[in-house]
Amino acid sequence: MIDNYNALLKPGEEELNERLEAAHSKIFAQQMQMKEKGLPVIVLFEGWGAAGKGSALGRVIRTLDPRFFTAVSMHDPSEDEKRKPFLCRYFTQIPEAGRFLFMDSGWMTEVTHDVLMDRIDRKVYRERVSSVRRFERGLTDNGYLVLKFFLQISRKEQKKRLDALLDSKDTAWQVGECDLWENKHYDKCEEVFDMFLEDTSTSTSPWYIVDAKSKKWAELQILETMTAGIDMALKNQTLTVPLIQNTFPLIPMPKLKDVPLDVTIDIDDYHKELKELQERLHELHNQAYRRRIPIIIAYEGWDAAGKGGNIKRLTAALDPRGYEVIPIASPKPHEKSRHFLWRFWTRLPKTGHFAIFDRTWYGRVMVERLEGFCTENEWQRAYNEINEFEKELYDWGAVIVKFWVHIDSDTQLARFTDRQNTPEKQWKITDEDWRNREKWDLYEGAVNEMLAKTSTTYAPWHILQSNDKHYARVQALRIVTEALEKALEK
Amino acid sequence: MIDNYNALLKPGEEELNERLEAAHSKIFAQQMQMKEKGLPVIVLFEGWGAAGKGSALGRVIRTLDPRFFTAVSMHDPSEDEKRKPFLCRYFTQIPEAGRFLFMDSGWMTEVTHDVLMDRIDRKVYRERVSSVRRFERGLTDNGYLVLKFFLQISRKEQKKRLDALLDSKDTAWQVGECDLWENKHYDKCEEVFDMFLEDTSTSTSPWYIVDAKSKKWAELQILETMTAGIDMALKNQTLTVPLIQNTFPLIPMPKLKDVPLDVTIDIDDYHKELKELQERLHELHNQAYRRRIPIIIAYEGWDAAGKGGNIKRLTAALDPRGYEVIPIASPKPHEKSRHFLWRFWTRLPKTGHFAIFDRTWYGRVMVERLEGFCTENEWQRAYNEINEFEKELYDWGAVIVKFWVHIDSDTQLARFTDRQNTPEKQWKITDEDWRNREKWDLYEGAVNEMLAKTSTTYAPWHILQSNDKHYARVQALRIVTEALEKALEK
Repeated sequence: MIDNYNALLKPGEEELNERLEAAHSKIFAQQMQMKEKGLPVIVLFEGWGAAGKGSALGRVIRTLDPRFFTAVSMHDPSEDEKRKPFLCRYFTQIPEAGRFLFMDSGWMTEVTHDVLMDRIDRKVYRERVSSVRRFERGLTDNGYLVLKFFLQISRKEQKKRLDALLDSKDTAWQVGECDLWENKHYDKCEEVFDMFLEDTSTSTSPWYIVDAKSKKWAELQILETMTAGIDMALKNQTLTVPLIQNTFPLIPMPKLKDVPLDVTIDIDDYHKELKELQERLHELHNQAYRRRIPIIIAYEGWDAAGKGGNIKRLTAALDPRGYEVIPIASPKPHEKSRHFLWRFWTRLPKTGHFAIFDRTWYGRVMVERLEGFCTENEWQRAYNEINEFEKELYDWGAVIVKFWVHIDSDTQLARFTDRQNTPEKQWKITDEDWRNREKWDLYEGAVNEMLAKTSTTYAPWHILQSNDKHYARVQALRIVTEALEKALEK
Repeated sequence: MIDNYNALLKPGEEELNERLEAAHSKIFAQQMQMKEKGLPVIVLFEGWGAAGKGSALGRVIRTLDPRFFTAVSMHDPSEDEKRKPFLCRYFTQIPEAGRFLFMDSGWMTEVTHDVLMDRIDRKVYRERVSSVRRFERGLTDNGYLVLKFFLQISRKEQKKRLDALLDSKDTAWQVGECDLWENKHYDKCEEVFDMFLEDTSTSTSPWYIVDAKSKKWAELQILETMTAGIDMALKNQTLTVPLIQNTFPLIPMPKLKDVPLDVTIDIDDYHKELKELQERLHELHNQAYRRRIPIIIAYEGWDAAGKGGNIKRLTAALDPRGYEVIPIASPKPHEKSRHFLWRFWTRLPKTGHFAIFDRTWYGRVMVERLEGFCTENEWQRAYNEINEFEKELYDWGAVIVKFWVHIDSDTQLARFTDRQNTPEKQWKITDEDWRNREKWDLYEGAVNEMLAKTSTTYAPWHILQSNDKHYARVQALRIVTEALEKALEK
């Protein structure tokens, strides 16, 4: 039962004003500490229509420095947003370290309205709740403070406010169909809101029910909860997060050393098969486009394994308006100061499109792990975070194919030497490549662990045997084609 | 779906042995660090019958120093345990800081068997799950590491093991009715186990599903999860825990200063009413005893407010075999090194009995708060922890009455002075009383906050107006009598 837990604690006017002033001074000071310590804070305002979400937001931010926060108002998803995974429009908004993001309505409104309007059934609702819990845990595990407020008013109070707004031409526009519907079906709404609040209140991102009858008192409850939360988050910044056991179905993967690399293809067969597969893929992409199935191809592999050439043979089959190749380099400062998956969430394809990632989010468990760009706890956690990320993409309907383009060490040496000695290929080889080569064994260990822990049934890894590049290209095209065929059969 | 998530990761024999040795060395070193840093660790083994819980426990502890751990095997609750709240027999076992507690079966077995045997319905199941989640969070919030293992074997493997055990007279006794039933109804059991695992897996105390087909491999999974968990917990010891908003129904309480203290009772009326109320209470206690209703009376109040005399008038009405007065002083070392509620869990009455606490668990938010015996985060958290504790008692069926025995500062001074000047009363007054008196205003603030935040509908506070001790005694008896009458009406 949603209840005004805080209604009883409301202080007298004098104390209220004193505490408000104190809370505003406190939060003003805290924003500087947040900046200094790089703490990102997400504040979500949810609640009944006319409960005063917008006004509460306005009151809370009035002491803050506008350089340190962004406030967004989330409405029903746009047509473009509907062509992305459910959580995408929230994930892409997350703030940089040291900044506030305020959200007027968010994932709660979206999910509960979908339930109330019968747009999703029980099963999808449960999936959404799982997604939300993972989303929030992914944020808090990675150092975000997530504060969630539900502004509570009674049916009577809501009615009174809506009537008052409707009474004047200047304010009547603020009342939506949805607000009136809510008031009319208050009990039903309360039941759904309650269920969602209970299902998504966790110890790391609990809900706060705000008694929103008085604006000032609501403001105080929010500010005091925020300042207490920020204090705590500032203290807990060195937190090591418990690792969660994988619960996604995995496919057994061979160790790299056990993958035979002496497979080859006859050059005539290559040209023939390549042509056939490309034509088939072209046709399948058209069908996928019409069916609005998004396709995500992830390429990882040894330096000089032939990723570039492999990708080229794939894109050659595709309509240029329907795909994008996304090269991933080391993160830019504005990317580094966010959740490590942010730069991938912002680069997802629209439904019906191909996104081909040339290097991927797996950098976390390879280069970032081995070069010490993230903590041990961070890369250990990443296997599960990545499986969860790909699960979101799968639930959205995406076909996900992941390639490890594999060669042996001798082949790499031969190709490096060839690049070094061939003027027009020299740009392809850098000192860093040679340095990475020295760590071959460490990388091999990390790759084996990655393949074992992230090859899920819904986003499997495929090892491309690329000592013979031609063989690997045909192999890649065949795997993508088959994955698409399977998806289109459904 | 319970799955052998770890089955795929099983290493070869050589690696297995190496890692086992490393893990044993590691945990041996960690027990010293645990001791030093005062980290308590609870390890719960659950799983299928014949999955090897006992043997896994034996293997895991073989490197540990026996002074640093306790291992208990939990069976079905005894008759005595059934007269305590569901969680009591688990809570009372929690280890001291720096020690391990290993449990062979526990709250999961109890709850899931109750479901499978149709001993509890859906509603009670949900209550149990809430209790378990609160119990575990209460432990982890207070610095306990809680590691939960579910040992998974397939139906076929279980059958094979049970048959092998039954084959020999020496081992047949190890197979219980329950194991055979489980194997016969494997699917149904799996469904219930799955539900419980999902319902109680949280980010602070997640479940680990152990592939228990091979004993050595099971041992390694458990040891490596334990060592990783202990490492993390040792790092996180300075953790500040997020405060959870109260969600229990509260009763509005007046501020102490607004409670009139000039109420009195005529001495003849006093004797008459006292006698009537005591007779009535005696009769009600008999009924409560027969109905097995436990009664918990908590006394807090100002020094010299008259707690002792008040309690005496209450106990005078009771059969001495059916009540206990429990005086609470500052915690002993073995109490201090456990969860602050442990010493109250261990002192709960049996059903049908009265437990009268002379000072209580509310010390946390009064003396411990004001004297700095606990951190700010700890006492702030305690309001909710206490509400949760009392909710467990209430769900168990207890009648809970809490008294704040109230006097004003002048009356206290008069009584202190009287005690000081009367030889036979001098033992009742100490320097500490005078020191506490100086902090009257601080205490008053803390008491007001306590009354506002912990007077729940199921465990309400009553302010006894005790400037006139006689008045307060009759008041107390009346309140207890009415509470019992209400409970007996149900």
